Amino acid sequence: MLSKNTVKFIKSLHQKKYRVESGKFFVEGEKSVLEVLQSSFTVDLLLVTQEFATKHAKVLSGVQAEVEYVTTNQLEQVGQYQSNDAALAVVQMKPNEAFTPVKGELILALDEVRDPGNLGTIIRIADWYGIKKLIFSSYTAEFYNPKVIQSSMGSFTRVQFYYGDLGQAFQAWKLPVYGAFLEGESIHQLTNPAPGVLLLGNESQGISKEVEKWVSNTITIPGFGNAESLNVAIATAIFCDNFKRMLNQ
Amino acid sequence: MLSKNTVKFIKSLHQKKYRVESGKFFVEGEKSVLEVLQSSFTVDLLLVTQEFATKHAKVLSGVQAEVEYVTTNQLEQVGQYQSNDAALAVVQMKPNEAFTPVKGELILALDEVRDPGNLGTIIRIADWYGIKKLIFSSYTAEFYNPKVIQSSMGSFTRVQFYYGDLGQAFQAWKLPVYGAFLEGESIHQLTNPAPGVLLLGNESQGISKEVEKWVSNTITIPGFGNAESLNVAIATAIFCDNFKRMLNQ
Repeated sequence: MLSKNTVKFIKSLHQKKYRVESGKFFVEGEKSVLEVLQSSFTVDLLLVTQEFATKHAKVLSGVQAEVEYVTTNQLEQVGQYQSNDAALAVVQMKPNEAFTPVKGELILALDEVRDPGNLGTIIRIADWYGIKKLIFSSYTAEFYNPKVIQSSMGSFTRVQFYYGDLGQAFQAWKLPVYGAFLEGESIHQLTNPAPGVLLLGNESQGISKEVEKWVSNTITIPGFGNAESLNVAIATAIFCDNFKRMLNQ
Repeated sequence: MLSKNTVKFIKSLHQKKYRVESGKFFVEGEKSVLEVLQSSFTVDLLLVTQEFATKHAKVLSGVQAEVEYVTTNQLEQVGQYQSNDAALAVVQMKPNEAFTPVKGELILALDEVRDPGNLGTIIRIADWYGIKKLIFSSYTAEFYNPKVIQSSMGSFTRVQFYYGDLGQAFQAWKLPVYGAFLEGESIHQLTNPAPGVLLLGNESQGISKEVEKWVSNTITIPGFGNAESLNVAIATAIFCDNFKRMLNQ
């Protein structure tokens, strides 16, 4: 039986303050919960419906976490999904550790992407293009925000990420930094780019002045019509696609 | 002064039923209202704050529509934006008229894209890439839905669109139809494509069986990681970018 304290605790994780305090976050829905169970994340508590437990008995048999059986109503009460007839997992955050790129790797850097939906979508795009490492400036949306987790569609389990000073990291890595601007070299004209860092900025302000100093190549998506701009997640996808196409030729 | 009947009428336009009955829709916010005022759409009624009127006096001097001065509170009461300190326009829908592609043109076709946010984002992408004509199957989200208008960021004023039978149109046009599938020819391998129709399907079901019959080339976005799919608006952007790159070489 789901105790009042457990309900209260999971509900507290809707707020960043309590996520940070406890070092935990939650994951909802069939697909995302299955992915987190089969990832390197540590699941502390798993709430499942009888239906989910029956359907995924094999996955559940290997689970170390405490498992509680709940109703669809209870899931919807503690989580953020309007409908969830499957499961919810309480998961331990990973430590914020710096990483070092390996040779030939493409890294994605975000300078203050604020919208959690955009961040989640970008994580899904990174995963599609096989980008394993992401670095975020400290004002970028929080990775463990439920909307980020939801919109990443399970891809949050397959990327390594790190919040820190972008300039410091770029300086240490000594890699080309391709910064996305509305005016730069057309990504269609770029030839034989070297692997490095693809950097996208804030939804309305773009890349900040402090970070711009570290950009070695300014790049842009050529427009053929009259729209003023593209959404940052859309732009990330187009840059990733162009880089992967060129790096794999 | 804003009459009770006007308030009631604008609020009724939140629902598709009343939009269809009246043949009208509404547009909110500074940027979108300015764009619709300077487009080929006919604006019937314009609600503006004093601030908007002062800032855009020149644009307003050329406006034929009835203009009412309102407060920010009134705008937020009749519209869907949580905050709107600028304007709202009641606009006449355009007739649903079939079009004929011109030589060399790239056309975008959507087969049951249901989410209004996705449709609006796709319209913005089409506008960015200079795609002027879009054809939608009848179950595609409604163009005049306030969420479509909002997420198109003004680009809805610059595209021509038509709801109708996709198969019939493709048959009449005699153009190559590039259909987006999870398994098809990699868009990175395609060389010298002929201009034609780029076709995207429903968010979860993809392109329907009836429409698939008319596809001449199945195309796909190559994946390099483990994400299962990409959002339909993201996919549209990547296909448009690749086609425009190749068609402009």
